[in-house]
Amino acid sequence: MHKAVVLLSGGLDSSTTLAIAQQDGYAVTALSFRYGQRHTVELERAAHIAAHFGADHRVIDINIGSFGGSALTDDRIDVPVDATPDGVIPPTYVPGRNTVFIAVALSLAEAIEAERLYLGITAVDYSGYPDCRPEYLDAYQRLADLATKAGLEGRGAKLVAPLLTLTKLDIVRAALDLGVPVNVTWSCYQGGTQPCGVCDSCRIRDRALIDAGRADLATPHAQAHLNHHA
Amino acid sequence: MHKAVVLLSGGLDSSTTLAIAQQDGYAVTALSFRYGQRHTVELERAAHIAAHFGADHRVIDINIGSFGGSALTDDRIDVPVDATPDGVIPPTYVPGRNTVFIAVALSLAEAIEAERLYLGITAVDYSGYPDCRPEYLDAYQRLADLATKAGLEGRGAKLVAPLLTLTKLDIVRAALDLGVPVNVTWSCYQGGTQPCGVCDSCRIRDRALIDAGRADLATPHAQAHLNHHA
Repeated sequence: MHKAVVLLSGGLDSSTTLAIAQQDGYAVTALSFRYGQRHTVELERAAHIAAHFGADHRVIDINIGSFGGSALTDDRIDVPVDATPDGVIPPTYVPGRNTVFIAVALSLAEAIEAERLYLGITAVDYSGYPDCRPEYLDAYQRLADLATKAGLEGRGAKLVAPLLTLTKLDIVRAALDLGVPVNVTWSCYQGGTQPCGVCDSCRIRDRALIDAGRADLATPHAQAHLNHHA
Repeated sequence: MHKAVVLLSGGLDSSTTLAIAQQDGYAVTALSFRYGQRHTVELERAAHIAAHFGADHRVIDINIGSFGGSALTDDRIDVPVDATPDGVIPPTYVPGRNTVFIAVALSLAEAIEAERLYLGITAVDYSGYPDCRPEYLDAYQRLADLATKAGLEGRGAKLVAPLLTLTKLDIVRAALDLGVPVNVTWSCYQGGTQPCGVCDSCRIRDRALIDAGRADLATPHAQAHLNHHA
């Protein structure tokens, strides 16, 4: 059976991507990172998601959070509760995070001879992040083909980002179609045991779930808001 | 003072690169990795080298060695004692290692606002490694410029590889000129407390030290061989 590595944060997007990789016929090894994020609850959720789909799961420690500079890893920087204006990179940006994660995933892919590396990157609803754009992925593919023994021999992993051009509503619909246990996924930027419902990630996700007719899967905060206005 | 990050393994090449970065006028943060290598002695040496030059030093854990596939991290694969034929990638190649190290270094560079990332890569004496070639570095620079907030704003770190076109003899001469404590550096691929003198890395280094008239800095193995033939 052909192999694929899937970067799995435990959020809605990466969980849906894992389901797509399986549907595409690959034996999946999911890869998650303990990188100093405040929302480590996502790692427990990632383990649940991988188990749900019967995928191998590896967690690698790489403490880039210790370098500072992001609201996701530095308790002194608040996670914003308002939308970030167009063209502005939000403070939840972690310097070089995707570049590090993809590099490690390529190393794993080469070691286990995986043909594909699936990424849950989406360019539509998070356009403020520089490392979630098509030209970034193209540049990474070019690097990967030059970087590795496998790449030079023409059997290097190909980067695949099936959600790249999908809206969050499209992703929610795909997740529901593919049997992703949406209630298990964790997208919130905050720590804690309940998603906050007010960070960028929660709000975009809640809006999509409500638009898809699944307000029952939205955060308690969003449900309270809906009931208040009902 | 302008800042630079230097990837420091503790070997001759990266130690010389650190000295060059300082000579170029940068305040240096050296970055080393505990990645599952059998020769962890290099990390102690890296700390000594950084202290010698008064540079900051950070060690990051990232266990890509657990993925397997290299003689440097897998005790079941022997470190070769013969030269690798031209055009063949040696078994000491670690899948994706440089790509991971550079990604983490770029993350650090962005977080501390460093202008340069110095790499001790050389394309001359280790031409078998795919991730030590000029076209690889060019592709990485292109990725870095697209990947980061700093890169998009035109103040991203520039990759610099001052040893890229130097022979090992050139590097030895530069090291001696710049006051690198060559006896402290560790280039051997094996574990242990003495360099083996027979791995690729030891042999190329010994040859250069002898050619530079500094046989006194060569491995015990090389010195015994010289004395035997004297």
